[in-house]
Amino acid sequence: MLDLKLKPREERRLRAGHLWVYSNEIDAGPEFRKLPAGSLCRVFDSRGQPLGLGYVNPHSLLAVRILSGNIEASIDQDWFQRRLQAALYWREKLYGEPHYRLVYGEADGLPGLVIDRYGEVLVVQLTTAGMEALKAPLLAALQALLSPRAIVLRNDNAAREQEGLSLEPEVIGSLPDVVEVQEEGLRYPLDLLRGQKTGFFFDQRDNRSRLARYASGARVLDVFSYVGAWALRALRDGAASATCLDSSQTALDAAQAAAQRNGLSLETIRDEALDGLKALREAGRQFDIVIVDPPALIKRRKDYEAGLEHYAALNRAALQLLPAEGLLVACSCSHHLPAEDLQRILLRESRRAKRRLRLLEQGAQGADHPVHPAIPETRYLKAFYCAVSQT
Amino acid sequence: MLDLKLKPREERRLRAGHLWVYSNEIDAGPEFRKLPAGSLCRVFDSRGQPLGLGYVNPHSLLAVRILSGNIEASIDQDWFQRRLQAALYWREKLYGEPHYRLVYGEADGLPGLVIDRYGEVLVVQLTTAGMEALKAPLLAALQALLSPRAIVLRNDNAAREQEGLSLEPEVIGSLPDVVEVQEEGLRYPLDLLRGQKTGFFFDQRDNRSRLARYASGARVLDVFSYVGAWALRALRDGAASATCLDSSQTALDAAQAAAQRNGLSLETIRDEALDGLKALREAGRQFDIVIVDPPALIKRRKDYEAGLEHYAALNRAALQLLPAEGLLVACSCSHHLPAEDLQRILLRESRRAKRRLRLLEQGAQGADHPVHPAIPETRYLKAFYCAVSQT
Repeated sequence: MLDLKLKPREERRLRAGHLWVYSNEIDAGPEFRKLPAGSLCRVFDSRGQPLGLGYVNPHSLLAVRILSGNIEASIDQDWFQRRLQAALYWREKLYGEPHYRLVYGEADGLPGLVIDRYGEVLVVQLTTAGMEALKAPLLAALQALLSPRAIVLRNDNAAREQEGLSLEPEVIGSLPDVVEVQEEGLRYPLDLLRGQKTGFFFDQRDNRSRLARYASGARVLDVFSYVGAWALRALRDGAASATCLDSSQTALDAAQAAAQRNGLSLETIRDEALDGLKALREAGRQFDIVIVDPPALIKRRKDYEAGLEHYAALNRAALQLLPAEGLLVACSCSHHLPAEDLQRILLRESRRAKRRLRLLEQGAQGADHPVHPAIPETRYLKAFYCAVSQT
Repeated sequence: MLDLKLKPREERRLRAGHLWVYSNEIDAGPEFRKLPAGSLCRVFDSRGQPLGLGYVNPHSLLAVRILSGNIEASIDQDWFQRRLQAALYWREKLYGEPHYRLVYGEADGLPGLVIDRYGEVLVVQLTTAGMEALKAPLLAALQALLSPRAIVLRNDNAAREQEGLSLEPEVIGSLPDVVEVQEEGLRYPLDLLRGQKTGFFFDQRDNRSRLARYASGARVLDVFSYVGAWALRALRDGAASATCLDSSQTALDAAQAAAQRNGLSLETIRDEALDGLKALREAGRQFDIVIVDPPALIKRRKDYEAGLEHYAALNRAALQLLPAEGLLVACSCSHHLPAEDLQRILLRESRRAKRRLRLLEQGAQGADHPVHPAIPETRYLKAFYCAVSQT
């Protein structure tokens, strides 16, 4: 077991509950660089007081992630089972169906690990060398706790690439070609090996539930629809019609398959978002509810300005499709875009369009993606429900 | 009609959509002080460009509130009816029962006006001299739009005292001794003339709805319960038991009356919050859910430090009543306490108590208290749903 000492006064973040140590905070010589990525380590402050047990990646700016505040802890199957059990406890309370994000990394005390549960199938993302090194006790704990029919290790994410880990997917057990995701009574037949990200965006589930009270009789437009989860929820909850706009035909085909599976009727438009919004306007189309839910447009801090204007352009185009009283649901999943900046952009665009906004509700990522109160990086999703009126 | 000119570069806030002008932003001589409070005025920037039509209070730091961006507007019954109609449109969409905040001041384009609707009874607060001066067209518009059985002008608020307005309540029409408020199927018999504030805290309604999925089988403690709206919702939604803690016997009597009205059984404890929490701990009591929903503990910015520590003490005491896995619902209705500061306090107290927090949800004031995107002062309510685990 490796021992690491922090430089003086660098222990504050950890003492407050954060789980990350940056490389420049560690009091270590050049030999630190030679450590094998993923090794377990004990972390001490500059006076030798223990701070916790974690794993290292000497090639990353984010050099250590803490697993336990107890430096004597054994990170074994039992340890994983206790953490997984606590994560499971809250998800079972929150959701009637076993379809949710079961583990959301740091917020569930499991840095570098994300698990989505689709009934008997688990989709696992190990995003760090440290968690990859702990795969055996983790998988044993999952088997003991949930006896899944299949575990899919997607592996195709940018974080693994940065950590120098294999990007090849791995399937343990027997994965059906099509897995049915359930969300509040709706069913989505999905291909979990080839679909976007981990397959389904559970993080917007609670926000889709909020839409119910606005849906009755509404014409709904779902921009960046992916498999149409907003559109189908709105239809089920009383919308008069729903239109999905997405650039991916695969996604729209999945949306139509889900519509059919649930006996609902959906319009799909394949186009880039801004082009599609422009075409709808030119065709004189109007919608009572427009949902703008793009992928992260600000992935790194340096993309901030360009991303901000992209959010602005999308919401500006959406505002032009609303009648005298309409609802704009403006979302951002960019951690680097604070909620107040999105609000500012919405205000600016509404003023330009001579519309008045009331912010009726503000949603965040669902409760199965909890925020760790010491780790701002665990908070990312914003959804403003804006009542839009003529001034 | 009075014309006011702003000093150079003081128009920015108004151009961005805010509705307030401070006295030091106005380019006016000492004669400004002599204007009658409540007079209508037209506001121009330093170059003479029109900014809007509002009303003045020359004795207040907040000297002008804008009613309309159109300086030609007539602030008459028709004008009120249009604003009220838009406010009503969204409330009717949001709530199945006609019990809600119908008008939330600036956010509904009606500065200085708050209206709560309890079915056929309206409780109106005119908080400024300017809105008081417009009482006649406002009341005519309300009569035309809603034909209420009674309109209660509560008048007993600090804002009116500052504006030098009468604090005597006024009742128009026929007010029953007891009015039944409805919230998601529950009924609360209330005395609207003598109850706290405007009678019922509609602003937490949507947050009480969120509690439903945690309630099943839980022992619930409602601290600062007032008429027990959190406790009774939890009981109705499956809680095993609910306890109300409040310092007011009148409030607890109203809670018991509401419990009886809905066929629910409630425990009430009359005590100051911190004393009551301590006594419960000493008695070895535990609760699966504790809701800490105090009145505003930071009313003015200078109360910040003391108020912050008061919030900390309350939540610290609440944490001590939770079992191995419990839910703390920590609320603040202090505008001067940003959400991140409340989060910081919760983190600190949980670390001290050796508990781990997951912030599952973050609620705000209900959708009938919309936020005006240009007016930060319209945002005030925070509710953190914290899953509390043993570390």
